[in-house]
Amino acid sequence: MRSWIDVPPDHDFPIQNLPYGVFENDCPARVGVAIGEFVFDLKAAHDAGLFDATVVARDNVFDRGSLNAFMALGRHAWSGVRHWLTSLLSTDNPTLRDDAALRKRLLIPQAQVRMKLPVEIGDFTDFYASKHHASNVGSMFRDPANPLTPNWVHMPIGYHGRAGSVFVSGVDVRRPCGQTKADDAPAPTFGPTRGLDYELELGFFVGTGNEPGQPIPIDRAADHIFGMVLLNDWSARDIQRWEYVPLGPFLGKSFATSISPWVVPLDALAPFRVEGPAQSPTPLPHLRSDAPWAMDIELEVLLKSAAMREPARVSRVNFRTMYWSIVQMLAHHTSNGTPLRTGDLCGTGTISGEAEDSRGCLLELSWKGTKPVHLPGGEMRSFLQDGDAVVMRGGCQGDGYRVGFGEVSAKVLPARSD
Amino acid sequence: MRSWIDVPPDHDFPIQNLPYGVFENDCPARVGVAIGEFVFDLKAAHDAGLFDATVVARDNVFDRGSLNAFMALGRHAWSGVRHWLTSLLSTDNPTLRDDAALRKRLLIPQAQVRMKLPVEIGDFTDFYASKHHASNVGSMFRDPANPLTPNWVHMPIGYHGRAGSVFVSGVDVRRPCGQTKADDAPAPTFGPTRGLDYELELGFFVGTGNEPGQPIPIDRAADHIFGMVLLNDWSARDIQRWEYVPLGPFLGKSFATSISPWVVPLDALAPFRVEGPAQSPTPLPHLRSDAPWAMDIELEVLLKSAAMREPARVSRVNFRTMYWSIVQMLAHHTSNGTPLRTGDLCGTGTISGEAEDSRGCLLELSWKGTKPVHLPGGEMRSFLQDGDAVVMRGGCQGDGYRVGFGEVSAKVLPARSD
Repeated sequence: MRSWIDVPPDHDFPIQNLPYGVFENDCPARVGVAIGEFVFDLKAAHDAGLFDATVVARDNVFDRGSLNAFMALGRHAWSGVRHWLTSLLSTDNPTLRDDAALRKRLLIPQAQVRMKLPVEIGDFTDFYASKHHASNVGSMFRDPANPLTPNWVHMPIGYHGRAGSVFVSGVDVRRPCGQTKADDAPAPTFGPTRGLDYELELGFFVGTGNEPGQPIPIDRAADHIFGMVLLNDWSARDIQRWEYVPLGPFLGKSFATSISPWVVPLDALAPFRVEGPAQSPTPLPHLRSDAPWAMDIELEVLLKSAAMREPARVSRVNFRTMYWSIVQMLAHHTSNGTPLRTGDLCGTGTISGEAEDSRGCLLELSWKGTKPVHLPGGEMRSFLQDGDAVVMRGGCQGDGYRVGFGEVSAKVLPARSD
Repeated sequence: MRSWIDVPPDHDFPIQNLPYGVFENDCPARVGVAIGEFVFDLKAAHDAGLFDATVVARDNVFDRGSLNAFMALGRHAWSGVRHWLTSLLSTDNPTLRDDAALRKRLLIPQAQVRMKLPVEIGDFTDFYASKHHASNVGSMFRDPANPLTPNWVHMPIGYHGRAGSVFVSGVDVRRPCGQTKADDAPAPTFGPTRGLDYELELGFFVGTGNEPGQPIPIDRAADHIFGMVLLNDWSARDIQRWEYVPLGPFLGKSFATSISPWVVPLDALAPFRVEGPAQSPTPLPHLRSDAPWAMDIELEVLLKSAAMREPARVSRVNFRTMYWSIVQMLAHHTSNGTPLRTGDLCGTGTISGEAEDSRGCLLELSWKGTKPVHLPGGEMRSFLQDGDAVVMRGGCQGDGYRVGFGEVSAKVLPARSD
């Protein structure tokens, strides 16, 4: 499968991907699809009648500032639109290929648009699904001999995060202040965090939800998942550590979460599904699926200090190492009847592999600050400094093509001075 | 201050209250105000020109299915509308009083309308601000000698709940299923909770929010709070107990939260502000306020089993006993720069007093099931049974009038049978 738009084989956005996003330029925000270096303007394409023979013919769901209206139409509509877009953009379809004026109107260079938060997010849930990550954190803060809590191997542990502080890539993040307390201090103090960290995650968006009280069976879970993004779950370790017992992380996480702007359809990731790690003990029946739901997605984190010219890779990991799969997360989430809604976002939790350089956050890479990370140029990092930019990238390697996520990137701004 | 509408002195909704809600009858959902047994239809009043001289003259913000548009206008608009409504409904204003046809159009008996969820909720945060509650729970599950975690006296501990499962009073709640594990069992099992509980709380709605990175100082916090509701934070204790370490409550809480339909304006509660309990140690400066922000609100919980004819009171408590105040909660919440948005909901956490019969949930009342609660008719309850209805009521006693919350009420439906 090739497109008449030239896309190099190592590019994130070939015709096999077609991720959805929301962009604006001179016009109000609208929905587009990334293809190579271009945004294909779906709102304008709909206006031009290009969707007249599709399931979305009646209502221009792309003339919105979010993907929600399109997502709410369900898997049948997502598949129909994806098939049609694939056809329109493929080498043998002359409709756009041979109409220079139409092409010029509908294909906008990505460099000329601003990407917006793609989805109006209902609730944001964050899981904790990497066994390596949970084991590392448990070793550091609980018991190296028994790093995992007893529940961890029986279900994908999760908690609710804050939807209102999810920002799109490029929105810089101000260093938060908060209460912290050193172990030997008599009382806490308030001030800028000294433990600012990133967490490498993937996020998936709920396309269609469920009625209250009606769980989604694991074998139907994929029908409800629209697509995936890169996710950076910014964390203030010192704030988190002081507050999190007994009700979990709160202000240590709530100040910011960053996501990549392009939502990669679950269908584009389907060819990269693989068997995941063996699960022992065998999960309870509602968390059991015969289908392979790990995903072969190569991910990397890069860091660029104010002094550096280029970002340098600090870790690299494959998503296939995750213990709990996204369909297990969704089935667990709804197993008590919790209603999910169009636009809900679920994060996978920090993605860490077995190797030391595959750990998905500085807390782990620097082992609580005891082994600072060395950056090219001689700087070292236990935690993030003001001016540091964190960049996450990732994708799947196909045969002669790549399905990539683009990137999520943001810089650390200094704390408020007052 | 009296209204030309007859309101008995013990009624929840006199002219001193004027709570906002969203209702529907034959027409689409719209905003109204409760006065005695009536709903004053603000959408129709606006259409009739009654708001032409007010700050909301231009746009009919009441012609919506939620209060959000009105809330977003800010405290100046809330005060302006409240003053004007008070004037319109007071004995000496003839505008409506002497216009029978207009009155008939604008005043609808509450018995003829259905109340909707009043607010489109962004994020839902739940605090843990009662020292008696936290101490009781800590005694039961941690250490009776040191029931509070060290952080508890330094800040209002909170966590994020689920906005998508907040329901209005009257929406019944299905008993959730989930993973639980008995202490002596080798592995968890999945099935209907055997520890279904309610939690008596108040909730407050954020009217206007803050920019990311910009905390709201405690002395400005009240400007951002629109009003308050009764809140029942349904909990499945056995699910919660197995899942909550290390990331906090998740599926044990996420299936349902119920709120009362009428949002009592913060201005209506102002006369009932009182000094709260002494706070020792003195909070850090950003959580310190000279103004009294406890509130003299008498609350009660009633329970009605399927066999009972009338609900019977199982506990009674005054909100003034809460250790942390709502302005401290809001200041803490934003102290790290977390942006709040119009429509965000914050729960206070279970409200328990010192006395045994002032405890705000069955877990405490029955002390983990060891002292079942006796109901009139001979039934006993450690936790809720199918068919039980939980009713919460509350209000403030003024001089010859009462500012009440109405009620939040819902019944327990049996678990799914499949």
